[in-house]
Amino acid sequence: MEGKEEDVRVGANKFAERQPIGTAAQTQDKDYKEPPPAPLFELEELWSWSFYRAGIAEFMATFLFLYITILTVMGVVQAKSKCSTVGIQGIAWAFGGMIFALVYCTAGISGGHINPAVTFGLLLARKLSLTRALLYMVMQCLGAICGAGVVKGFQKGIYESNGGGANVVAPGYTKGDGLGAEIIGTFVLVYTVFSATDAKRSARDSHVPLLAPLPIGFAVFLVHLATIPITGTGINPARSLGAAIIYNKDHAWDDQWIFWVGPFIGAALAAFYHQIVIRAIPFKSRP
Amino acid sequence: MEGKEEDVRVGANKFAERQPIGTAAQTQDKDYKEPPPAPLFELEELWSWSFYRAGIAEFMATFLFLYITILTVMGVVQAKSKCSTVGIQGIAWAFGGMIFALVYCTAGISGGHINPAVTFGLLLARKLSLTRALLYMVMQCLGAICGAGVVKGFQKGIYESNGGGANVVAPGYTKGDGLGAEIIGTFVLVYTVFSATDAKRSARDSHVPLLAPLPIGFAVFLVHLATIPITGTGINPARSLGAAIIYNKDHAWDDQWIFWVGPFIGAALAAFYHQIVIRAIPFKSRP
Amino acid sequence: MEGKEEDVRVGANKFAERQPIGTAAQTQDKDYKEPPPAPLFELEELWSWSFYRAGIAEFMATFLFLYITILTVMGVVQAKSKCSTVGIQGIAWAFGGMIFALVYCTAGISGGHINPAVTFGLLLARKLSLTRALLYMVMQCLGAICGAGVVKGFQKGIYESNGGGANVVAPGYTKGDGLGAEIIGTFVLVYTVFSATDAKRSARDSHVPLLAPLPIGFAVFLVHLATIPITGTGINPARSLGAAIIYNKDHAWDDQWIFWVGPFIGAALAAFYHQIVIRAIPFKSRP
Amino acid sequence: MEGKEEDVRVGANKFAERQPIGTAAQTQDKDYKEPPPAPLFELEELWSWSFYRAGIAEFMATFLFLYITILTVMGVVQAKSKCSTVGIQGIAWAFGGMIFALVYCTAGISGGHINPAVTFGLLLARKLSLTRALLYMVMQCLGAICGAGVVKGFQKGIYESNGGGANVVAPGYTKGDGLGAEIIGTFVLVYTVFSATDAKRSARDSHVPLLAPLPIGFAVFLVHLATIPITGTGINPARSLGAAIIYNKDHAWDDQWIFWVGPFIGAALAAFYHQIVIRAIPFKSRP
Repeated sequence: MEGKEEDVRVGANKFAERQPIGTAAQTQDKDYKEPPPAPLFELEELWSWSFYRAGIAEFMATFLFLYITILTVMGVVQAKSKCSTVGIQGIAWAFGGMIFALVYCTAGISGGHINPAVTFGLLLARKLSLTRALLYMVMQCLGAICGAGVVKGFQKGIYESNGGGANVVAPGYTKGDGLGAEIIGTFVLVYTVFSATDAKRSARDSHVPLLAPLPIGFAVFLVHLATIPITGTGINPARSLGAAIIYNKDHAWDDQWIFWVGPFIGAALAAFYHQIVIRAIPFKSRP
Repeated sequence: MEGKEEDVRVGANKFAERQPIGTAAQTQDKDYKEPPPAPLFELEELWSWSFYRAGIAEFMATFLFLYITILTVMGVVQAKSKCSTVGIQGIAWAFGGMIFALVYCTAGISGGHINPAVTFGLLLARKLSLTRALLYMVMQCLGAICGAGVVKGFQKGIYESNGGGANVVAPGYTKGDGLGAEIIGTFVLVYTVFSATDAKRSARDSHVPLLAPLPIGFAVFLVHLATIPITGTGINPARSLGAAIIYNKDHAWDDQWIFWVGPFIGAALAAFYHQIVIRAIPFKSRP
Repeated sequence: MEGKEEDVRVGANKFAERQPIGTAAQTQDKDYKEPPPAPLFELEELWSWSFYRAGIAEFMATFLFLYITILTVMGVVQAKSKCSTVGIQGIAWAFGGMIFALVYCTAGISGGHINPAVTFGLLLARKLSLTRALLYMVMQCLGAICGAGVVKGFQKGIYESNGGGANVVAPGYTKGDGLGAEIIGTFVLVYTVFSATDAKRSARDSHVPLLAPLPIGFAVFLVHLATIPITGTGINPARSLGAAIIYNKDHAWDDQWIFWVGPFIGAALAAFYHQIVIRAIPFKSRP
Repeated sequence: MEGKEEDVRVGANKFAERQPIGTAAQTQDKDYKEPPPAPLFELEELWSWSFYRAGIAEFMATFLFLYITILTVMGVVQAKSKCSTVGIQGIAWAFGGMIFALVYCTAGISGGHINPAVTFGLLLARKLSLTRALLYMVMQCLGAICGAGVVKGFQKGIYESNGGGANVVAPGYTKGDGLGAEIIGTFVLVYTVFSATDAKRSARDSHVPLLAPLPIGFAVFLVHLATIPITGTGINPARSLGAAIIYNKDHAWDDQWIFWVGPFIGAALAAFYHQIVIRAIPFKSRP
């Protein structure tokens, strides 16, 4: 259908991100066909508007993601009684719900990653080019910094005295615990992303997208339910970096590596599990 | 399909609102085709029953919206312990859930706006005529006043001593904070509305509506999670006006402008972002 | 498709309930066609297994509905601190969620009413025969009594000393308040049911059911959020009767009429609003 | 569509589990056709990779299920004030939400059982072979043990002093109460599974899967809302066994039989109700 837009010049989605999360309705023909791996470098896409538009969409989505979620966190932590707030469960809903809504909104523009770990996982599975992955990660981090910055702008004092929504390993847990929690948590998220965007699923369900953003948002919600007491839940390096930069205190920076190494390992394991174990792609005879 | 209803006289949806929120399955043909902009004045529709029926549907939906949500707010704020109520999170669910259910119910009748800011955003994008937009906004405000009025009718004393569900900027925040929260909050909502009703999405997903009311309702829920501590969350001028008129105390009126200026700016930014940046509609060569 | 089952004798759904809630995919042909009104008496269906099977399904669904919801209520009210329970919001989820799941499960068998007020509203709109409506209402009440009875069986003392989940008008509200809350609450529910099962919606969305049980379940959830503090929320005469019979104390019986008159008025208003105002069915020229 | 994959050797889904929960889009032709009962022993499938891959998927899903849910339980029970946690309701969301996400992810690989009681119910209905059922149950139990083990690894002391998420009958309830709660709870779950995967539903809804994992996940959520105060809610023998083995204290073992006998009886009743009462399969004349 993209090909019919020849009259469109500026807004054309010519070098489309290959695996938009929100729409499993990928394949033109209904038979199951693994899309070919994306080239590592696709120089041509650097001259297309759709490439940069995708970057803008990732920036905007991550900006809104941090704004809503960190503002929710601030509303809860600054209250004397958690009962008069939306509570810790409300924080989990904010993170999961925003991912649901934003993946729904941006899947058709950029694929709806909103998370460097997701981008990394899809890059390993060769679902997008390296240049596109780098653009996405940079835009995600910039968006996250801006989102957290706006929240700090509302009430600077309260923001700084309440942890700023930054991810740190909670007292009573070792750094290894935090790393493990981030690895498995990101595995849950990225495995759900792979399942939701699976080309084989598209074929089997004919052309009906299974409202893929919903399970993805739920995965984020569920990991937050479980690991907020341990690390505050990162599973998204852009979210952790944005809050850390705006908060900018030593103990947030000390644990920052955990929220990059953990999610990237988790995403890599999920990509490995889905592509090698479940899809067995390397063992298939290509035509 | 509308065209097949020639035998129907009174109930015909002849001058249908162009972008019903609940159904993305708009285009007859499956190819992507931007619908032409709605004329500013469409005098003919003033003589059609479907025009006024849409107004009635907007009135009824906004009436039920205010009734359920303000009643939920009252139940929470009048209790001594928030633990024995549905809590602040329950309030957020009430607002978001009602938008989900009501958009689902009225999308086929009026487009399911239930919010002057949504109507304003869609008007800017030329998705409906100016006359229709004015009718909708008037009916939404009337519905909101009636809905809040019924809640006050249950327990007048408790209503007045507990703020009446009116939107005000909370102590500790400046009016600028409140305005900013309303602008970004409405941006989240109206951008979700645009994404859910995008003609291009319809084409890509063939004729399968992606249960659009769900992300729209979730957007409302999420903004409430984040900004209830700041302004009580308006992002809907009809809701703010209805509660203010029925509550009718000075401090509610003092901040009222914030809940009109903020949402309208936010809606305009969302319309700009979606139509200019994402869709690039002005740059496309029209046939 | 039903017609293809000629080889099936006992299990055939020959006299199917005309408007199964869970599936909007009603019309064989895709054009919009109002189904003819159901006859008041359809003697033939009294000899079909599918008629009684539908009754069994209504019994079983209402049994499970009362069992899960009243058990949830008991778990919350018997605790000293509501914080160590699922809370009032959890009760609202139990009612709404069960309706979602049960409508999903039984829509294909009986239409998934699980509520005499819904049956009454659909009867007024001539969506099912009077005999079928009576069977459904009787089975719903029997199921509700059994469901509440099992909950009492777990812990008789706690059940009786904590109100037994029976609906009563809360102190501080008049009986008129309770009646009004039940009327509007049932209106919200039954209007959502009509919207979700609208034949016109089916036509417009081609053959894609819009996951109708979800907004219906949400409607129940939302009304509970708002009116639990007023009446405990009935909007379902079978649920109110079942709990009252098993609880069997005077103050539960004193208010019982409210939970029959209110829901039936609300359902009638919703049927009127949808059929006359929105669909304008009486004004349409029939072929 | 499976038949088109002749070029695939290792990853082929040749002996597919017959009733994948997540996709109701089962039948190739759109007419309603009860699939033939699965053979008890299908020796050939023991030589296929897809058979063992399904086992791996069940292991992984149950591992993630226990990890997230037991970690959520630990976060709640170790806190002094439940208000500063996600609360008991958050626990219910963790169980129900994980089932939603995991059924969504693994339905296409193994059918997405993640629960020996579900496997048992589908075995009784002859939806899968005995060998496959045994493989699934063993893998589910192994996955559950590993998942609970990882949670214990985070904080051994806290895990052991807070009950380890093991299922026991709460004080004030008899073992009969616990058994009854498990039977009816599992009935709700397995009946929802049968309804969601019904071949007749597929036919009626043409080729549109009704997002089946959502009601299944909700069923789990709802049973938890109701019966956490009684037994902590098992309705999944693998979950109960895994927590008991890792917790390994006498009072957890004393009640263990309840969480095997109850769910298996409940699953058998649901299979009986759906196949005999609702579908009337034994009374149908087979061609």
